[in-house]
Amino acid sequence: MKLASYQDGSRDGQLVVVSRDLTQAHYATGIADRLQQVLDDWNFLAPQLQDLYAGLNAGRAPHAFAFDAQRCMAPLPRPRQWLGALAYPSHVQRVHGEGVLPPGGLLAPLYQGGGERLLGAHEALAVPNGRAEPDLGAQLAVVTGEVPQGASPEQALASVRLLVLANAVVLRSLWRREAERGLGPLQALPAIAFGPVAVTPDELGEAWHQGRVHLTLQVDCNGRRIGRCEAGSDMGWHFGELLAQAVATRGAGAGTLLGSGPVSNADPAKGCSCLAERRALEVLDGASGPRTPLLGEGDRVRIEMKLRSGQSVFGAIDQVVVFQG
Amino acid sequence: MKLASYQDGSRDGQLVVVSRDLTQAHYATGIADRLQQVLDDWNFLAPQLQDLYAGLNAGRAPHAFAFDAQRCMAPLPRPRQWLGALAYPSHVQRVHGEGVLPPGGLLAPLYQGGGERLLGAHEALAVPNGRAEPDLGAQLAVVTGEVPQGASPEQALASVRLLVLANAVVLRSLWRREAERGLGPLQALPAIAFGPVAVTPDELGEAWHQGRVHLTLQVDCNGRRIGRCEAGSDMGWHFGELLAQAVATRGAGAGTLLGSGPVSNADPAKGCSCLAERRALEVLDGASGPRTPLLGEGDRVRIEMKLRSGQSVFGAIDQVVVFQG
Repeated sequence: MKLASYQDGSRDGQLVVVSRDLTQAHYATGIADRLQQVLDDWNFLAPQLQDLYAGLNAGRAPHAFAFDAQRCMAPLPRPRQWLGALAYPSHVQRVHGEGVLPPGGLLAPLYQGGGERLLGAHEALAVPNGRAEPDLGAQLAVVTGEVPQGASPEQALASVRLLVLANAVVLRSLWRREAERGLGPLQALPAIAFGPVAVTPDELGEAWHQGRVHLTLQVDCNGRRIGRCEAGSDMGWHFGELLAQAVATRGAGAGTLLGSGPVSNADPAKGCSCLAERRALEVLDGASGPRTPLLGEGDRVRIEMKLRSGQSVFGAIDQVVVFQG
Repeated sequence: MKLASYQDGSRDGQLVVVSRDLTQAHYATGIADRLQQVLDDWNFLAPQLQDLYAGLNAGRAPHAFAFDAQRCMAPLPRPRQWLGALAYPSHVQRVHGEGVLPPGGLLAPLYQGGGERLLGAHEALAVPNGRAEPDLGAQLAVVTGEVPQGASPEQALASVRLLVLANAVVLRSLWRREAERGLGPLQALPAIAFGPVAVTPDELGEAWHQGRVHLTLQVDCNGRRIGRCEAGSDMGWHFGELLAQAVATRGAGAGTLLGSGPVSNADPAKGCSCLAERRALEVLDGASGPRTPLLGEGDRVRIEMKLRSGQSVFGAIDQVVVFQG
């Protein structure tokens, strides 16, 4: 099923069920008001939402209305936490260098992000200024139920309730400065925007396989193609492995978000899901150094993922960059 | 006023108002069920709780009952986020080295922590094992209302709603490994325990001054004195400065926690608020190297802060270490 949180003046938004084709919606009132409630009591509430979803898709929901992605907040506007992975080795090698990959390659690069400043799909992307070197970070993230401390990758994978589309913006100059100090990124992570709807993994059919999403992530900037990367093929660790690593020493509560990091493929012809990686490829390409600028005021970022049928899975992230400082 | 969250089988607990002398309590039912609700709507709800608190202190609350710290969860069991500072330069120099202090000393060492595995004051302190080098981290933390992006230190300080007592455990061997990779601590931060009650800053009277708490933090391990550090005098940045740094590029929601890091004084005779610092002082002291072990199975940690009158501010953290792995 597909779920969204409509703006209603509250911090958590109003839960709506959205039809598979993203044209119709229905308030979940009577079942749950907020998505966090559903995550807290999934086994009881999700089947009721699933019934409503089936009715909506069949044109049998009595109070359905036209779905408007402009009214969406992030699907989970106040998550328990955001865990950031860098799960694509080709991205890590091109942008961060091998240093963040621990010896042996068993552990994934993983950091604790904040659960703040979550944006809806069409909200302006406010960043401090160009000197901070703002960059997009197109990726998928999972939304979990409870993940107990010490869960195995398989147990952790079974805790995945929903998938979301995300643009986790990075301020590259601050990232480098904070990485040098060893305390990890904090100011470097200004905002995360989300696609309009969250979907249960069964919506992806066979494309959800062994903890990876085998579909193409479409990333454009100002109408120009930045990337058409395959999200599944080159993901170094699957979502269950990433979650298990995160809960090695402490459990994660229902409503935890874990993002894959910018999707990337070994084949540079697929493009990229962030601009720093594109610039790194331009440097490797020789000649005159990087040509693609990082994000500038007024730039428009568009991110979407479609099924093989052409149906948009999450709806699109479509945002304009605004400088604030 | 003083507030606590009683265990009631829910993830958020049941809000209770606690008398100043920590002997009596009263459910806040009818005003708010959960502390997060109060933080979301502080100006409307806090005065109502204050009235109940005044009645409780005066012996005029009709359904008061004996306060039992054993029944307390963390005062805010599901906070928006945990921001970890290392705000005491003497602690940083002795334990982490100068590397985490940026040039010029203007910025504080600050990291994004997780908001998970928050423990009540008497819950067992579960850590993986001794090889992870578990250490305590006795400190104060503030609980905020909304802190807008770009808030000044004064604005950020005005957002402080409550103070809490915390033991943010660190796994030292994992911290070093994660710091080397530049992504910051994640597995190194297993659990944070909290004193039974959260208090509004006015409870501290003159001891709350210019964003610092001028009282002594008492830290004992197995009945032995570890530290009697002054929390105010050597704090390199006050809580408003730390919060302002954290919101430079993104706002923080109501219910954000920011911890000061282990309290420490330049004068080593005051002792320490973590064991790694004590070991570092033992090394500096010459002779035979560090004598104090890090936390071991069955160790008992006790942390408390008292007013000059002898009244306990937050109640005590009193926990026993349990190895899990």
